[in-house]
Amino acid sequence: MFKLYYAPGTCARASHIALQDAGADYMVERVDFKSNQQNSPQYLAINAKGRVPALVTERGILTETPAMLAFIAQSFPQSHLAPLDDAFAFAQVQAFNSYLCATVHVAHAHRMRGARWATEESSFADMKRRVPQTVGACFALIERDMLKGPWVMGEHYTICDPYLYTIAGWLEGDGVDLAVLPKVVDHRKRMSERPAVKKVLAEEQG
Amino acid sequence: MFKLYYAPGTCARASHIALQDAGADYMVERVDFKSNQQNSPQYLAINAKGRVPALVTERGILTETPAMLAFIAQSFPQSHLAPLDDAFAFAQVQAFNSYLCATVHVAHAHRMRGARWATEESSFADMKRRVPQTVGACFALIERDMLKGPWVMGEHYTICDPYLYTIAGWLEGDGVDLAVLPKVVDHRKRMSERPAVKKVLAEEQG
Repeated sequence: MFKLYYAPGTCARASHIALQDAGADYMVERVDFKSNQQNSPQYLAINAKGRVPALVTERGILTETPAMLAFIAQSFPQSHLAPLDDAFAFAQVQAFNSYLCATVHVAHAHRMRGARWATEESSFADMKRRVPQTVGACFALIERDMLKGPWVMGEHYTICDPYLYTIAGWLEGDGVDLAVLPKVVDHRKRMSERPAVKKVLAEEQG
Repeated sequence: MFKLYYAPGTCARASHIALQDAGADYMVERVDFKSNQQNSPQYLAINAKGRVPALVTERGILTETPAMLAFIAQSFPQSHLAPLDDAFAFAQVQAFNSYLCATVHVAHAHRMRGARWATEESSFADMKRRVPQTVGACFALIERDMLKGPWVMGEHYTICDPYLYTIAGWLEGDGVDLAVLPKVVDHRKRMSERPAVKKVLAEEQG
């Protein structure tokens, strides 16, 4: 039995969907961002970084979405969520997820989390103004070069798909023009129709 | 034969050391940041993100340090650069590398690369002022919770070690007080004494 610490609408959704895709036995526990629960002593004992997601396993606690997604794929090989027997193809999956984590999510975070990297209100406003452009540039690259279709890696659904779906859910809020991203929009729609995704969205509200 | 595109002193050093650790057959090609070669049409055809590192393999080109490091470990299993037969331990390795990539490197990048996320000189100055604190907080967590010693994951050297060594090389430039990071400093020294690291530093200048 795994336990996933999450907050609704955050990147924790990617691992939540992957657990559902894998048929894993799991429970979820919501971390209340409104009361800053992620920085409570209780939660910092689970994840000292004060972030979601965190995944409690029999062996210990894991953090960081790309690591958790690969762990879920490797723990449930029968689910075929990653090309586990092909180091190059697995690296392509990981490179995509690393780009989402370290570049796309980071670009997005400058809209609301500017205080991570600056102190002045004028800097936060400046960062916020650039988000449509920076996130838009990331997704333009995904649209043009990375998303093979119908799934990120082509014919086979992988752990890249719930992660892209999760971050693409922030596009409207980030002020990115969806009209120039038809493949991303199509992917998001196809994901939203999957029973696993519907179940996860319901559980997030649970 | 692999070909690694790099620039001296960048995060490409981590993969360069791992190739050396693995005994891989590789060559290196320097990308000249001074002339903005990373954004030349020729280099963008190799890595559309305009960044280093990029690794040319027989199967295609890989980017993103965490993905490349795992790929090198998996491609040279006899080098024991990661716990490949233990999904949880492998996930711990990946979580550490993901933290370096998406949080520590990103905190550092706000010192010189503020134009990625803002437009005003005042914002760049604000970001730059926070770097000693933000990078310092990341390394305080590494020192306290993550670096088990003597290597990152404990007794066994892994792909976490060259990556930590590489990013810890930026601490002085980032204005972080090394006096509170004795384990990190000790790790950096131990790494610098490895023949593979000496060879890589010489090749970077080559």
